[in-house]
Amino acid sequence: MKVGYFQTHPEFGEVQRNIDQVAVRLGAVDCELLVLPEFAFTGYQFVDQEEVRELSEPVPAGPTTQACLELARRHRMHLVVGLPEKAGGECYNSAIVVGPSGFLGSYRKTHLFCEETLFFSPGDSGFRVWDIGQARIGVMICFDWYYPESARTLAVQGADIVCHPSNLVLPHCPDAMVTRSLENRVFSITANRVGREDRGGKPPLTFIGKSEVVSPTGRILSRASADTPELTVVEIDVDDARNKSINPYNELLRDRRPGYYCS
Amino acid sequence: MKVGYFQTHPEFGEVQRNIDQVAVRLGAVDCELLVLPEFAFTGYQFVDQEEVRELSEPVPAGPTTQACLELARRHRMHLVVGLPEKAGGECYNSAIVVGPSGFLGSYRKTHLFCEETLFFSPGDSGFRVWDIGQARIGVMICFDWYYPESARTLAVQGADIVCHPSNLVLPHCPDAMVTRSLENRVFSITANRVGREDRGGKPPLTFIGKSEVVSPTGRILSRASADTPELTVVEIDVDDARNKSINPYNELLRDRRPGYYCS
Repeated sequence: MKVGYFQTHPEFGEVQRNIDQVAVRLGAVDCELLVLPEFAFTGYQFVDQEEVRELSEPVPAGPTTQACLELARRHRMHLVVGLPEKAGGECYNSAIVVGPSGFLGSYRKTHLFCEETLFFSPGDSGFRVWDIGQARIGVMICFDWYYPESARTLAVQGADIVCHPSNLVLPHCPDAMVTRSLENRVFSITANRVGREDRGGKPPLTFIGKSEVVSPTGRILSRASADTPELTVVEIDVDDARNKSINPYNELLRDRRPGYYCS
Repeated sequence: MKVGYFQTHPEFGEVQRNIDQVAVRLGAVDCELLVLPEFAFTGYQFVDQEEVRELSEPVPAGPTTQACLELARRHRMHLVVGLPEKAGGECYNSAIVVGPSGFLGSYRKTHLFCEETLFFSPGDSGFRVWDIGQARIGVMICFDWYYPESARTLAVQGADIVCHPSNLVLPHCPDAMVTRSLENRVFSITANRVGREDRGGKPPLTFIGKSEVVSPTGRILSRASADTPELTVVEIDVDDARNKSINPYNELLRDRRPGYYCS
């Protein structure tokens, strides 16, 4: 199975232009699953709630989801894409999952980071897994990585691949995702962005790039640069994520002992 | 507070000699908490159940715990030390916590690794935390690191320092402990051993050393070599582990959302 990340450099607020820049690249890409960053087409550093409301969209009716559906159909691939979602008067930091057969669902970020807590409601979807035929994929967004419960909850639900749209500004995540993959024996695809945002007099944010695909044994199959847009596809064998045997005596998930874990 | 690890190279089965070799070094050490490896004085590669029974001891009545108590009193330090424990007809892969004031308690390894599953009963103590005055310390043993629930359960109970006696043979743990410290904002002290065991025709085991102390922000304060015994003490500020603030909007443990986590 061919999977990849698209490390982008969106321009804040220029949703249609950012979508077009992604669209123009997809024709030349041969893969079954492509992960894009958190807030892939809007940019990240919202100045106030009004701006959040303006750029948030209903899912799946909004234009971003519809554009992604069209791209997924045309290029016969699954896409995982972050966007600000508007629903029932609330805004969520969400990611959609779309494929050639249509809209599969969405995930609302469970662990909001920093000023996101001012502008978005805490996600209420829970961690979800979708069977896309060749693999079962789960989604978590950016700061969710900090909480090991996120990837664990996806793995326990059978995820082979953790799709991880991100807008990382702290340095630790790329290495930590090696641990996340290893401790769950899953593939992970972190799609981060690059560039810098410095809006409304707020402290500037520099996004660290380093998007990556990590194997279930913690091998970094590909890691992008810190500062350049990049679309990378790697070939994986999904069965590697279904083999939870660490050695003849230890099976990763079977050997969990939840009775001794904190809730 | 001064804390450290003693990366040792025990000789299999030579319990008294191995204790003596440790004892002779402690007089020159100025620290309040010292962590020793898993099975610090027996060695690791048991050939059969009979050998396990011979080398296992009651806790705290057995000679190893008594020797450690004497060392802790004499040198006015807390020690965390791995040993095979015999109790009620069962054997456990355990670690004791002793201090100048006496025996504090023990922990029985929750996640047994590889052939340990043949010789030891799965730990039934659960993850425990002790207040030693200057810090609250929790204990997990070696392969427990693979399960993020181990360190998390200690952190949720208030551990400032995760003491981690180990006999590591896989390569991933030293880097993974950076993630463990970071995701819980705790100090961690991994005390590993060095050397090789090749007993009873079993596949040889090479222990990877690389004992380390990691800070709550994921900084490696000290990491030992891969192949040499080493006793290292570093100065830490325990308050760093009690500050769970990631930024003005995020508090690490407060922001957990257990309702969305798998059990």
